[in-house]
Amino acid sequence: MAAFHCLTFLTDYGLEDAFVGVCHGVALQIAPDARVIDISHLIPPGDIRRGAAVLAQAVPYLPAAVHVAVVDPGVGTQRRAIAVEAGGSVFVGPDNGLLTWAVAAAGGARRAVVLSNRDLWRDTVTATFHGRDIFMPVAAWLATGIPLDRAGDPLAVADLVSLPAPPFRVTGRTARAEVITVDRFGNVQLSLPGDVAGQAGLVPGAAVTLAWDGREITVPVAATFGDVPPGELVCYRDSSGLVAIAVAGGDAAARLGLRPGSALTLILSS
Amino acid sequence: MAAFHCLTFLTDYGLEDAFVGVCHGVALQIAPDARVIDISHLIPPGDIRRGAAVLAQAVPYLPAAVHVAVVDPGVGTQRRAIAVEAGGSVFVGPDNGLLTWAVAAAGGARRAVVLSNRDLWRDTVTATFHGRDIFMPVAAWLATGIPLDRAGDPLAVADLVSLPAPPFRVTGRTARAEVITVDRFGNVQLSLPGDVAGQAGLVPGAAVTLAWDGREITVPVAATFGDVPPGELVCYRDSSGLVAIAVAGGDAAARLGLRPGSALTLILSS
Amino acid sequence: MAAFHCLTFLTDYGLEDAFVGVCHGVALQIAPDARVIDISHLIPPGDIRRGAAVLAQAVPYLPAAVHVAVVDPGVGTQRRAIAVEAGGSVFVGPDNGLLTWAVAAAGGARRAVVLSNRDLWRDTVTATFHGRDIFMPVAAWLATGIPLDRAGDPLAVADLVSLPAPPFRVTGRTARAEVITVDRFGNVQLSLPGDVAGQAGLVPGAAVTLAWDGREITVPVAATFGDVPPGELVCYRDSSGLVAIAVAGGDAAARLGLRPGSALTLILSS
Repeated sequence: MAAFHCLTFLTDYGLEDAFVGVCHGVALQIAPDARVIDISHLIPPGDIRRGAAVLAQAVPYLPAAVHVAVVDPGVGTQRRAIAVEAGGSVFVGPDNGLLTWAVAAAGGARRAVVLSNRDLWRDTVTATFHGRDIFMPVAAWLATGIPLDRAGDPLAVADLVSLPAPPFRVTGRTARAEVITVDRFGNVQLSLPGDVAGQAGLVPGAAVTLAWDGREITVPVAATFGDVPPGELVCYRDSSGLVAIAVAGGDAAARLGLRPGSALTLILSS
Repeated sequence: MAAFHCLTFLTDYGLEDAFVGVCHGVALQIAPDARVIDISHLIPPGDIRRGAAVLAQAVPYLPAAVHVAVVDPGVGTQRRAIAVEAGGSVFVGPDNGLLTWAVAAAGGARRAVVLSNRDLWRDTVTATFHGRDIFMPVAAWLATGIPLDRAGDPLAVADLVSLPAPPFRVTGRTARAEVITVDRFGNVQLSLPGDVAGQAGLVPGAAVTLAWDGREITVPVAATFGDVPPGELVCYRDSSGLVAIAVAGGDAAARLGLRPGSALTLILSS
Repeated sequence: MAAFHCLTFLTDYGLEDAFVGVCHGVALQIAPDARVIDISHLIPPGDIRRGAAVLAQAVPYLPAAVHVAVVDPGVGTQRRAIAVEAGGSVFVGPDNGLLTWAVAAAGGARRAVVLSNRDLWRDTVTATFHGRDIFMPVAAWLATGIPLDRAGDPLAVADLVSLPAPPFRVTGRTARAEVITVDRFGNVQLSLPGDVAGQAGLVPGAAVTLAWDGREITVPVAATFGDVPPGELVCYRDSSGLVAIAVAGGDAAARLGLRPGSALTLILSS
C-alpha cells in the first residue's frame, strides 16, 4: 500500500502513566513522517464496547490512516492480533470486536491479516503491553508503506471476531433502542439512527415519550440543546447522526439514571 | 494573510470522547503542515469565563497562530461564529465572550468577520458539533493562508460580544479583587495585577490580610511558595503576573474555601 | 551535540490549565522541527518519586531526545536547574532527584551542567513557572543542536542530587520489596526485578505468598493477567521487567490496600 501520513491511536491506557507516550516514541522511531492523532485514551479499562463506539464515530472524520486501537483485556493470551483493511485505511488491534464498528463505518473489511510477522514487532515482546511491543510497531511499519500482507498471514474476513451492532427496532411510532454511550456532557446517545427516527416522526417540533425502568417522561424534540431553556430535557439528532437525549447546560445521564446498555422505548406523540 | 504554521485548540470537550481527536483529523486534512497545540480541553462544560481566562493567559507565550476556542453552550442557536484578528494571530470561536480576554491580551481586535462562508465549512453541518463542522475547518483554511475576509462578512469590532474584565480596585493599602481561576495545584489566582499590587506595597517580605466571607487571615508575601514551610499559606505574584494565594505543597482553594468568582479584600500591613 | 528531532515532556502540571500547552508553544518557537512527545502530565503534584519512576520506565522505548521533566516543589528557591547527558540523550529538569532513575536507565550520567546561561532562558523569568521560562526554552535550544556546555557551568556528576533506588532483597526463596507505582489499571509494580525473582523461582506456574501489614495471601504466578479467571489475583513480570500484582479485569491496589512505598515480603512456595 502507499504510505500513510497519519496514525490514529485509541486505548484504555489512561494518561497517568507513560503508556501512551511510549507508544508515540515507538511510532516516531519507525515512521518519523507520520503524524499521530490521539482519539482518546480514557476508554474505561477493558470496555471494548465503549472503545468500539468512540472509534467508529471518529473514523468518518479522520484522514486515511493506520488506526491503532487497544482495549485488550485478553493481552498475552491466545486472542489474535490483527490488521484489517477498510475504506482506504488500515485498522490494527486485538481481534476482540473492538474494531468491528469502525471497520463497518469505513465501508467494511476488504481483507485482514493476523500479525504473525515478528520482524515487524519489537525485538522483545512482553506479555502485557502489546500496544508498545506489537500493535504500534506494526502499525508504524504499515504507515511507512509496507504492504499489509507483509504483516502476517491472511485471515478470512468472515473469521474476524465480531461485535454485534447495538440493536434498535421501529414499529409505527414506537422505537426500541439502547444507550450506546454517554459523553462528557452527560448527553445520552441511543442506538437509533436519526434518519430512521425522522421517518417515524421524530423531528424538531415534535414530542417524544421516553420509557425505561418503569419511568416515563415526555420531552420536546429540537435541533440542539440550546433550543430549550437551561435545565430542560431535549431529544435531538446528535453530531454522529444518532438520536440523543440532553439536558441544556446539564447532565442527562445523571438526571435520568441512564448508562450504556440501558434499554428504552420511545413513543412519538401523534 | 500569510499562512500560519500553528493552530492552537482550547475546548470544554473533555478527553473521554473522540471530539478533540476528530477536530485534529479535520485540521490535518485541510492544513497538513500546521502543528496543532492543545491548550486545554478540560474547561468545565460551558464555563466561558474559565475558558476565557485560560486562553488569555496562554496567548502571550504562544507563537502567531490561528487560535481555535470552543466553549459554546449556545451551539446551533443564533449566536454568531466569528474570527477576530489581533496581534498577528487570528482567534476563531463562538461570539459569546470566550475570546474577549485573549484578544485583549494579544493587543486588541483589529478586525472581525462572521463565519458566513459555507464553502469553508464541512459539507454537512450538525447542530451540536460546530468545532468539527465549522470552527476547525475554517481555522485550518485560514492557517493555509486564505485571507480573513474570505471567511465571511465583516463585523464591527465594537459589535463583538464582550466579557467584562474581572474587577479589581486599589485604595491606599486596601485592594478588592475576585478569584479568576484555581489551578491544578489549588493555587488561587486573583484579578489583581501584580504590578499594581506591588505599588501598593504587596512585595516579598510584606504581609497581607485577606478577608472574605466573614473570615480573615494574614499571610506572608513571598516570591514563590517554596519560600515558606510546607503547609503554610503564601501570597505571591504568579506566572501570569497576577496576585495569587498558595499553600506550599498543598491546596489553597480547598483550605480557604475559595472558588472562581469569590470576592476578597486584601489589606496590606503598614 | 547534533540536533535532536524529539523533545519529551513529563510534568505534574495536569491538563486543566494551559501550563502544558504553553510549554509546547515555547518549544515550537525555538525548535520548530522537533516533535514533542508528552509522556505524562498527571504525576501527582510534587510527587518526585512517581515522576522519576514513570520517566525511567519510558526512556528505554523513546528515541534519542531532549527529555524535559518538571516535578518541582522547590521552584524559585535555591535548588539547581540542570541538564544531564546520558546515553545519547539529554535530560533537563530540577536537580531534586527527579531525573536520577531515568539517567540510570539511559546508561548513567556522562556530564552535567547547571542551567546558568540566561541567554537561553525567556527574557522574563517568573518565580513559579520554570517549565515555561527556563526548562523548556533551554531544552528546545539544545534540541536545535546547541552544545550542552553552552547551557551553563559544568557540574560534577557526583554532585547531582540523587534519588535512592527503590530497595529489594532476595534471600533464598524469600524476597523483600516495596511498591514503586500503581498504574491506571490498579496493577501494583514492585521494586523487584523480574529476572532476579525468576532465578529465585518466581516463574509462571509457581505460586507466591505475599505478606504485608499483617495480611498474607498466596497467588499464582502467570505470564499475564489474562491467564487467570476474571477477578482473580495474579503475580507476573510486567512490561518494564518488574514483578507486579494484578487482578484480572480488576484493581489490585484497591483490593489489597497497597500504595507506592508499601513494603511486602514475597515467599515462593517450594
